Amino acid sequence: MTIAKKIKSSIAQSSMIRKMFEQGILLKKKYGADKVYDFSLGNPNVEQPDEFKRELINLAAEIIPLKHGYTPNAGYIETRQAIAQKISRTSGLKIGADHVIMSCGAGGALNVIFKALLDPGDEVIVLKPFFVEYPFYIENFSGIVKYAETKKDFSLDIDSIAGAISEKTKAIILNSPNNPTGKVYSEKEIAELSQVLLEKGRALGKTIYLISDEPYAEIVFDGVTVPSVLAAYPNSIVAYSYSKTLSLPGERIGYIAVSPEIQDAGDLISALILCTRILGFVHAPALMQRIVARLQDVAVDVKVYQNKRDLLCAGLSKAGYKFAKPQGAFYLFVQSPIPDDVAFVKMLLQKNILVVPGSGFSGPGYFRIAYCVDDATIVNSMGGFDEAIRECN
Amino acid sequence: MTIAKKIKSSIAQSSMIRKMFEQGILLKKKYGADKVYDFSLGNPNVEQPDEFKRELINLAAEIIPLKHGYTPNAGYIETRQAIAQKISRTSGLKIGADHVIMSCGAGGALNVIFKALLDPGDEVIVLKPFFVEYPFYIENFSGIVKYAETKKDFSLDIDSIAGAISEKTKAIILNSPNNPTGKVYSEKEIAELSQVLLEKGRALGKTIYLISDEPYAEIVFDGVTVPSVLAAYPNSIVAYSYSKTLSLPGERIGYIAVSPEIQDAGDLISALILCTRILGFVHAPALMQRIVARLQDVAVDVKVYQNKRDLLCAGLSKAGYKFAKPQGAFYLFVQSPIPDDVAFVKMLLQKNILVVPGSGFSGPGYFRIAYCVDDATIVNSMGGFDEAIRECN
Repeated sequence: MTIAKKIKSSIAQSSMIRKMFEQGILLKKKYGADKVYDFSLGNPNVEQPDEFKRELINLAAEIIPLKHGYTPNAGYIETRQAIAQKISRTSGLKIGADHVIMSCGAGGALNVIFKALLDPGDEVIVLKPFFVEYPFYIENFSGIVKYAETKKDFSLDIDSIAGAISEKTKAIILNSPNNPTGKVYSEKEIAELSQVLLEKGRALGKTIYLISDEPYAEIVFDGVTVPSVLAAYPNSIVAYSYSKTLSLPGERIGYIAVSPEIQDAGDLISALILCTRILGFVHAPALMQRIVARLQDVAVDVKVYQNKRDLLCAGLSKAGYKFAKPQGAFYLFVQSPIPDDVAFVKMLLQKNILVVPGSGFSGPGYFRIAYCVDDATIVNSMGGFDEAIRECN
Repeated sequence: MTIAKKIKSSIAQSSMIRKMFEQGILLKKKYGADKVYDFSLGNPNVEQPDEFKRELINLAAEIIPLKHGYTPNAGYIETRQAIAQKISRTSGLKIGADHVIMSCGAGGALNVIFKALLDPGDEVIVLKPFFVEYPFYIENFSGIVKYAETKKDFSLDIDSIAGAISEKTKAIILNSPNNPTGKVYSEKEIAELSQVLLEKGRALGKTIYLISDEPYAEIVFDGVTVPSVLAAYPNSIVAYSYSKTLSLPGERIGYIAVSPEIQDAGDLISALILCTRILGFVHAPALMQRIVARLQDVAVDVKVYQNKRDLLCAGLSKAGYKFAKPQGAFYLFVQSPIPDDVAFVKMLLQKNILVVPGSGFSGPGYFRIAYCVDDATIVNSMGGFDEAIRECN
């Protein structure tokens, strides 16, 4: 045995989705890229805002000594101040720069948070269906994943969450707008969750952290906004990424924000900074830290995603597919016309349509469409979607 | 208890060095930055090469769809090809793009390597004195740190290494040019090490990996070159960073290179890619991947560091300090004139000179000078260094 045993088994497990991606590449070679409808990946396809392009050009030309040098492990103070001001505005809380730690995207943020919080055997509650990386992130630090259900419309099932809490519970992770469902939890749902976490925490004599993974916070439709968990629950931690807000997932920039009302906030902040360092992130990329400091009120044109959602929902609805219309992110979680979602995904593959089976997100009986694609891909795929559902009936 | 117990104790341990840094900040406020001689941090102070500045400006202005989008977890194939060609040239081996995985600097690379290799309880051999982060990186993945000694001139002590190898040994980590000593291991030393690792591996019926941490590989003086461990030992893995070569430690860009002769290389490469993903790095920053692809034969002006070394060594030697003259990196590891290095560092602090006690690197009786500072800092600190050693005699 050479590599770690656990990694060996993880590679074996993830090879199924990988095989699908490889099949997609083969399909594109065989039929041409425009004849393959690839909805498999959440890679934003809306252009970066002009402000981003302008600032990148400005910063590239700027002459400052050590401007690509190490930053503090928590990040540049100017960047953290700009973010703290923005969060203070949206949450109504008084957030200081100290409560913000820059991260390498939300993926980096979540690993740092779990490393800082979890002792071996600590439990983290994850809501089904969920982003496929969460169990890895939790198990990286010997945490135990506990699952809770969501309702039919993917809203919070408070009873299921309450039932999953034990004396080993350290945290619950929320993802809103959600990947894979596009669901945005309402203020009322968050308030109910907060109450349960406070009650259970009091009864168990411990702090239960609410970790809110919000990379899609700005990608919301129909005037919906994402309620602030920081305002709703004292023991909350936000993991944020600019990947979707500014269409730059490749540049690995985001942050962790800690509620100022959290117990022992100073300890937690020190732990998050130390973990950023010792996990080898060291700190978030310097140039991107400088850029996002200047772009706190800038975002991609969200209308473009909303139009794609509407185009997709209208087409699929007409074909007879069932789904809860999403209010955010760029995913649609559709009921498979047959119970076996993997089998149905294979049927779609026959039509050169690539989607991901819900089973991959612990949501069997569904499939996920990532609609961050050209409108033409949506329009031209409809024939295949139509044929596939008719073949099931 | 809120944060993880282990992190809590790590914060307590690292607070001593931190307090020194904070004292440095206070000193600069009190006396002015030009009256404080800060040799505490390894933040490169030589300007980025003109080629870097030019390419950054070019790339910032370039219009390519999705250019800040996700890259493959292993990195752009073009970047990996350019690096593989360079390594093939310098090692004489045939390295393919598959054997190169882009990383967030060497710190990111090492965490990914340890995550991929270590089962709980596996041992990693670390040579004293060592870069302070190694024990954290190894313990992140429940590995056990085993220490071996180096000789008086900081060259490899093969007997000590052989004695540290057990049936639990998974790897040994080398750092050449070395932080904190500036030592470059010779081809002969690497060959002897290779032979011992092969013999011991054969006797124990297992693979012992040689992990070579080489962020300072291009920062070498007097015509010295860093021998290729890939050429010398079949089971070798290189962790590289552009932080020092291009003076951009803030941008977090480096790579992992795997020997093509390694046993089960395919498994190891899959493991490294998976670990890059699930540790939350996802992949190295996209823009910097594109830049380094174009700058394979570019480096900072190393002569500038060599001159600083000479200036520092001449001054300290004249004052009576003892040290092994380093052949690379930008650190000098100096014998403390009194046995208690922490006490001597405090004496230097009285002269507004900031250095790090050797104890922090498990090298008690020494102190580390990071001479990536202005020449004026070196020159103007000499009075203080002179006074301090005279006070000891």
